[in-house]
Amino acid sequence: MFSFDLDYLLQQSLEIGVKLIVLIIAFLIISPLGKKAISRLIQRSTSHKNVPQPRAVTLEKLLINIFSYTLIFVFIVMFFAIIGLEIGPLIASAGVVGLAIAFGAQGLVSDIVTGFFILLEKQVDVGDYVTVAGYDGIVEEIGLRTTQIRGFDGTLHFVPNREISGVSNHSRGNMRALVDIGISYEDNIDQAIQVLKDVCTEFENDERFTEGPDVLGVQSFGSSEVVLRVIGKTENMAQWGAERDIRKRIKEAFDANSIEIPYPHQVNVTKEN
Amino acid sequence: MFSFDLDYLLQQSLEIGVKLIVLIIAFLIISPLGKKAISRLIQRSTSHKNVPQPRAVTLEKLLINIFSYTLIFVFIVMFFAIIGLEIGPLIASAGVVGLAIAFGAQGLVSDIVTGFFILLEKQVDVGDYVTVAGYDGIVEEIGLRTTQIRGFDGTLHFVPNREISGVSNHSRGNMRALVDIGISYEDNIDQAIQVLKDVCTEFENDERFTEGPDVLGVQSFGSSEVVLRVIGKTENMAQWGAERDIRKRIKEAFDANSIEIPYPHQVNVTKEN
Amino acid sequence: MFSFDLDYLLQQSLEIGVKLIVLIIAFLIISPLGKKAISRLIQRSTSHKNVPQPRAVTLEKLLINIFSYTLIFVFIVMFFAIIGLEIGPLIASAGVVGLAIAFGAQGLVSDIVTGFFILLEKQVDVGDYVTVAGYDGIVEEIGLRTTQIRGFDGTLHFVPNREISGVSNHSRGNMRALVDIGISYEDNIDQAIQVLKDVCTEFENDERFTEGPDVLGVQSFGSSEVVLRVIGKTENMAQWGAERDIRKRIKEAFDANSIEIPYPHQVNVTKEN
Amino acid sequence: MFSFDLDYLLQQSLEIGVKLIVLIIAFLIISPLGKKAISRLIQRSTSHKNVPQPRAVTLEKLLINIFSYTLIFVFIVMFFAIIGLEIGPLIASAGVVGLAIAFGAQGLVSDIVTGFFILLEKQVDVGDYVTVAGYDGIVEEIGLRTTQIRGFDGTLHFVPNREISGVSNHSRGNMRALVDIGISYEDNIDQAIQVLKDVCTEFENDERFTEGPDVLGVQSFGSSEVVLRVIGKTENMAQWGAERDIRKRIKEAFDANSIEIPYPHQVNVTKEN
Amino acid sequence: MFSFDLDYLLQQSLEIGVKLIVLIIAFLIISPLGKKAISRLIQRSTSHKNVPQPRAVTLEKLLINIFSYTLIFVFIVMFFAIIGLEIGPLIASAGVVGLAIAFGAQGLVSDIVTGFFILLEKQVDVGDYVTVAGYDGIVEEIGLRTTQIRGFDGTLHFVPNREISGVSNHSRGNMRALVDIGISYEDNIDQAIQVLKDVCTEFENDERFTEGPDVLGVQSFGSSEVVLRVIGKTENMAQWGAERDIRKRIKEAFDANSIEIPYPHQVNVTKEN
Amino acid sequence: MFSFDLDYLLQQSLEIGVKLIVLIIAFLIISPLGKKAISRLIQRSTSHKNVPQPRAVTLEKLLINIFSYTLIFVFIVMFFAIIGLEIGPLIASAGVVGLAIAFGAQGLVSDIVTGFFILLEKQVDVGDYVTVAGYDGIVEEIGLRTTQIRGFDGTLHFVPNREISGVSNHSRGNMRALVDIGISYEDNIDQAIQVLKDVCTEFENDERFTEGPDVLGVQSFGSSEVVLRVIGKTENMAQWGAERDIRKRIKEAFDANSIEIPYPHQVNVTKEN
Amino acid sequence: MFSFDLDYLLQQSLEIGVKLIVLIIAFLIISPLGKKAISRLIQRSTSHKNVPQPRAVTLEKLLINIFSYTLIFVFIVMFFAIIGLEIGPLIASAGVVGLAIAFGAQGLVSDIVTGFFILLEKQVDVGDYVTVAGYDGIVEEIGLRTTQIRGFDGTLHFVPNREISGVSNHSRGNMRALVDIGISYEDNIDQAIQVLKDVCTEFENDERFTEGPDVLGVQSFGSSEVVLRVIGKTENMAQWGAERDIRKRIKEAFDANSIEIPYPHQVNVTKEN
Repeated sequence: MFSFDLDYLLQQSLEIGVKLIVLIIAFLIISPLGKKAISRLIQRSTSHKNVPQPRAVTLEKLLINIFSYTLIFVFIVMFFAIIGLEIGPLIASAGVVGLAIAFGAQGLVSDIVTGFFILLEKQVDVGDYVTVAGYDGIVEEIGLRTTQIRGFDGTLHFVPNREISGVSNHSRGNMRALVDIGISYEDNIDQAIQVLKDVCTEFENDERFTEGPDVLGVQSFGSSEVVLRVIGKTENMAQWGAERDIRKRIKEAFDANSIEIPYPHQVNVTKEN
Repeated sequence: MFSFDLDYLLQQSLEIGVKLIVLIIAFLIISPLGKKAISRLIQRSTSHKNVPQPRAVTLEKLLINIFSYTLIFVFIVMFFAIIGLEIGPLIASAGVVGLAIAFGAQGLVSDIVTGFFILLEKQVDVGDYVTVAGYDGIVEEIGLRTTQIRGFDGTLHFVPNREISGVSNHSRGNMRALVDIGISYEDNIDQAIQVLKDVCTEFENDERFTEGPDVLGVQSFGSSEVVLRVIGKTENMAQWGAERDIRKRIKEAFDANSIEIPYPHQVNVTKEN
Repeated sequence: MFSFDLDYLLQQSLEIGVKLIVLIIAFLIISPLGKKAISRLIQRSTSHKNVPQPRAVTLEKLLINIFSYTLIFVFIVMFFAIIGLEIGPLIASAGVVGLAIAFGAQGLVSDIVTGFFILLEKQVDVGDYVTVAGYDGIVEEIGLRTTQIRGFDGTLHFVPNREISGVSNHSRGNMRALVDIGISYEDNIDQAIQVLKDVCTEFENDERFTEGPDVLGVQSFGSSEVVLRVIGKTENMAQWGAERDIRKRIKEAFDANSIEIPYPHQVNVTKEN
Repeated sequence: MFSFDLDYLLQQSLEIGVKLIVLIIAFLIISPLGKKAISRLIQRSTSHKNVPQPRAVTLEKLLINIFSYTLIFVFIVMFFAIIGLEIGPLIASAGVVGLAIAFGAQGLVSDIVTGFFILLEKQVDVGDYVTVAGYDGIVEEIGLRTTQIRGFDGTLHFVPNREISGVSNHSRGNMRALVDIGISYEDNIDQAIQVLKDVCTEFENDERFTEGPDVLGVQSFGSSEVVLRVIGKTENMAQWGAERDIRKRIKEAFDANSIEIPYPHQVNVTKEN
Repeated sequence: MFSFDLDYLLQQSLEIGVKLIVLIIAFLIISPLGKKAISRLIQRSTSHKNVPQPRAVTLEKLLINIFSYTLIFVFIVMFFAIIGLEIGPLIASAGVVGLAIAFGAQGLVSDIVTGFFILLEKQVDVGDYVTVAGYDGIVEEIGLRTTQIRGFDGTLHFVPNREISGVSNHSRGNMRALVDIGISYEDNIDQAIQVLKDVCTEFENDERFTEGPDVLGVQSFGSSEVVLRVIGKTENMAQWGAERDIRKRIKEAFDANSIEIPYPHQVNVTKEN
Repeated sequence: MFSFDLDYLLQQSLEIGVKLIVLIIAFLIISPLGKKAISRLIQRSTSHKNVPQPRAVTLEKLLINIFSYTLIFVFIVMFFAIIGLEIGPLIASAGVVGLAIAFGAQGLVSDIVTGFFILLEKQVDVGDYVTVAGYDGIVEEIGLRTTQIRGFDGTLHFVPNREISGVSNHSRGNMRALVDIGISYEDNIDQAIQVLKDVCTEFENDERFTEGPDVLGVQSFGSSEVVLRVIGKTENMAQWGAERDIRKRIKEAFDANSIEIPYPHQVNVTKEN
Repeated sequence: MFSFDLDYLLQQSLEIGVKLIVLIIAFLIISPLGKKAISRLIQRSTSHKNVPQPRAVTLEKLLINIFSYTLIFVFIVMFFAIIGLEIGPLIASAGVVGLAIAFGAQGLVSDIVTGFFILLEKQVDVGDYVTVAGYDGIVEEIGLRTTQIRGFDGTLHFVPNREISGVSNHSRGNMRALVDIGISYEDNIDQAIQVLKDVCTEFENDERFTEGPDVLGVQSFGSSEVVLRVIGKTENMAQWGAERDIRKRIKEAFDANSIEIPYPHQVNVTKEN
């Protein structure tokens, strides 16, 4: 009887042993292969996008970390499964608590996934002027979980990446300078446009302008003024200064040519009570 | 005793071997068949929609990649299952973490699914002027995860595809040019309409107009003016210039015919205190 | 020993064979029956709703496709189950990835379900003027996933069907023409209503009107005018032209009868500082 | 050996046969019982709510249909389970696709559940004037999935029932007629109220009014007028006509009594610059 | 051989029989115990909250119904499980359809849960004037699924209970009467307050007031007037009438004391063009 | 044969008996231990937060109740499992209905969790003046499911705790009194500030003020006035009265010093038509 | 027979015993290792971020607590599993209730996860002036579940951390002082800018300014004024005082130089009725 048991135990032990060896060999093969695959993937993804070397290294390290932790987790579970202690159902049985955690923590995962792609696709760089999630400002730090943006009033905004549904990056190319200017209905449109054109000519040699400001024409009929539009392209971040200078010159040119920037008008019809 | 064990082992090994062979054969058959099916599917879907060849290739490659990775994943899981190491429950047991990841990553999947159909249905082309997810501008790049739109002020918007709930493509056909113009309640409507009609006649030979601008009539009674509407169809992207030119000509024609574009009116009733 | 094994194998093979035959027969019966049932269902659903023949065919084809793919999927899974390779748990074990896909792809399913019912219930036809999901325009194409709407400014809107929470179809019957007109507080209401009634009589023979325009009476007291309302029913899409013509005629009739459409009034009380 | 197998097969077949018989008997008993229960349930639910007979029949038919299909589905699954082909796990294994479908189709189920209760609780009848989900109009058709509402401008709105979060039924009882009228701060409030009371007396015999219009008093102090309120109850849908008639009569009575409906006032303080 | 089978069958039958008996006994004990527990629970919960007897009975009946149906369901499932037909997995296998139903029907459950607590906590009574889910009016009926509210314009609102995120009950105690009155910047504040105090004194014996109206003081500086506030507490639903009466009296008292309720003021600075 | 069965039955019974005893002993140990742990936990959590004794008792009772019910539930399920009737899968099999209930009832759980922490963290006390979920008023009752708030107009608001996303408690410390006052652009700022400072000095001995009101300076340039700000800290709930008194005194002081609180200004430029 | 049973029992007991010992040893090893790993992790994460020591200790304690409770939970479940009482399915079977709890409690988990990262990333400190979730104020306490913010009017806001979607920290660096000032269209822009520059020079030695205030130029054309902008950087929290002082000085300088801050202008065109 007992010899039979011993046999059975021996046989079982043998079986377990073989399984463990297969398991270990499998992991010894998968681990370096996976890491190499990740490295190559990152190199390919980033090489043709001019992602700077340090950032690529960051992404690679992150992915290899995730891979390693997953592998270790899988190894432990399988090890216990083979020696007869099934952790699988145990973890599954943590369902209620786990579910609550899963719901609660999904924001965290969402942060990291979004952050990962913001980094990988180079949507923002530190120092860019961006608008994300309703916050305007200069990017100070881009993390996997939060992006820090310095608003123009000095406030530091911490924006969880999951809140970033769309990135408006104002530092990727030339910017538009646009000035709308109203003239009186009594003024001559052609004369006003000529004056504006003269002002635009003055700015043609301005280094800030990449496309010299032009007069578009009659943009709209306001309640008390005919609105003319001047438009141009400037170098990045120079648009506000350029607009301010154009505005000042237009006012001066209009004054010199007696063209009125009209106040709101009202026609008064007098009726005796 | 031991011979029995050997028999059993042999038999088991045999069984496993047969299963493995069936598995490998099955996959050797399914793999090329699946790829061929995908190729045909893409060809059929895209051929009658004038999807350009390179895009069709991109979609085909994407689908074949997804198919291959799925097949490899399935193969690995089944291989382990056959040799007695069940990965299935293991993966299932990663439930808590997995659930969190699933919740967090659903946005990514949503991005890709939406992106896939935007490409397949050719909803936007690079260079189109579109309005998506509240962003206006010219499409610079269409990706599976994000679409890049260059706003008119020079900003580059990165829009995750999942945010694109509806695409308004302004580059698919002729556009409307519409000018609303108010005349005084004291002016003669028939005369004003005649003046507008004369202006419209001038634009009939304008190349930009595909349907010559027409006078629709009395659009509404404003608080201080009778609003007349002029409408036409222009070639794509020419509508703003056309509108500006019509506006300028109407103002000049009204001036020539002494038709007033009225300021806001108010009747003043004087009462002694 | 070996003969026993052979017996066992034979027996097992026999069992598997019988099961496979039952399976195949079952599917050979279910497949045509299911297709026939779908055809009948579609015919019944569409016959009393005047769904045009080609659309019914489209729906039938779609349903039969879905049915066939499902059947093939079921067949493959069961086939493997019978020959001892259980795919079931395997698919289930793809849980994490699958869950993410399920969450991400639900929008797609939602598109198709909504699109299916828009087609089946004939909520819109190509050429209808509709308002869906905030987009106004003429329907250009109705698909299972997206509906294309041409806006009045020439923009082509691609609306995913899931976004269509309610359809406002403006091309299903006669439309209302409504003109609100303000008269001065000093004018005689009865006289003004009489003038409006005369104008309405003029339009009674207008072919566009299916219910001759009528004067409703004093709609409201505005801050400077008594608002009167004229209302009528016109043929579809003729309402705007009709409204414009009524407006023009009222203005002329009021001018002829010296009834004032009043400007905003203000009583000025003068106080010395 | 073979005789043993035969025995085993026989025994198994016997067992399966017995199970199948039990299954069939169970269903033969449950099916008519269930249908009868549904009929009774509907009769009880609808009898004391004056639900019209045809509608009750519709509901009964719907429920019996659902019940039958469920029973057939259950029968098929159990049948296969008994003969050794387990469909259960198979269906469960369709999890990924199924989950996506479940998420996507939940709207459909939500439509039907809501539609069912709108019918059962008689919240709306065809011809009622209702406000649901932001749409105003007359109900044209109530379906399990969509409700059709004809707007007052002639538009036909298709509203999925799930969008109906609350039903405002304007055709369930008498409606309020309410007229707010401003008098000058210089006018005598008592006199104005007396005039309004006289007007109200005129309308007391008006058949439309179920509660004669009454003067409530000083509703508020406006910036330029003292607001008085007249209120009454009219028969359903007669409220607008009644309000219009009251308004006209008040204006005439005020004119006759020299009570002013004041224009906006402003006190002008003149200051030399 | 057959005798062995018989033995086995007998033994199995015996086992099943014993299990069935235990099952039946268990249910015979649990059923009355559960019902009794529910009755006691309701009695305790409602006794110290003055819930009227009929409502308590309604709640008790509802809970006992739910309990009974659940018990019957459990009994049937266990019965089948014991006789060897496992319904459990079957029901579970209805997963896809079931999940869709669960998602779709959750609103229904939410309705009932919320309705249950509105009844239990006596948040509203029939006849109360309430504001729920954006609807104002008098409660006509409180159901487990919907609450019916009669708006003041006569509309009957059907509000699903799940939409009731917060209940504002205006019929639970005395209400505030509040009148804001503006006086001219030139008027004497002390005199005006004195006049208001005199008006308040007149209302002190008014039965409607539970806290005599008081003058609070200078509430704010308006653009053209100094705003004074009068406040008081009245019996429920008497607040509007009280406010109207106070307003009328203040106007009369101000007229008698030559205190001006000022029109909007404007300082005009004249400038020659 | 039968003796063998008996043996087997005996052995099984024995095994079951042992298991039951272990089960009972385990529960006899866990039950008091758990209760004690809860008591200690509550005592520790509440002791250093000055939570009043009765509230701590309420929380303790609630937690012990939950613990007991859970234990009883677990005991019953395990009892049945041991005697061979597995309830586990049964309950799990109630999936569809259960899932719907879970979705529907989550609001209830959310209510209780939030309510629990509002009580534990002492966020509100009965009698506090708070703003939660858009409702303003005095807290009348704090329950685990709903919080009752008495609005200032006398309305009683029942707020489900889950709606309370943030609590603004206005009764936790001194409150700010803030008065913005506009002076004419023509007035002398220094003189006006001096007058305001004199007014502030008068209030320095006012008991209501914990930080004497101070003049901050020029807060902004309005369109017609220079805005000065006076700020101070008062005892809780005294801020409105204090503000009203300061306002009255400032008006009197300004009148005495001929400082004008200006009406809106407008510069009129006259143009002949 | 019985000896066999004994053997079997003995053998089973032995097996259980061995498993228990393995279990205990495993936990004795994992427990201290896990704690050490947590300590190191926290030390590394916090050391290079200047997180103050006490906060790091708090985080470490929290993580070790969570780890310990999880380990104990796992130990109990495995202990029962080994001695033959499977708790796993039991807990899983609590699905319905558990699911409801999971849904309801996810907010709690979300609170803690967000709170944890706010602490770890040092997004706010006690005493910081922040804007979170729509609440403005000074942080009084940062907890794992709620953050307490003292508003400027004295209100104490309890903000659940999950509501904090983005943190705007106004206490992390210098702040901007910005004054927009309008001058008349008739005034000379160059002179006005010169006056503003003189004012700015006065503030250059002001300690509050880290970047001396500068005049930017013509910010915009208002309807009645040309808007000039003055901008500077001040020390944290000094921006409001600085702005107030600049405003006062500009007004005085403008008065001294007869530069007008214009009232709203209107051009009046008189028309005889």
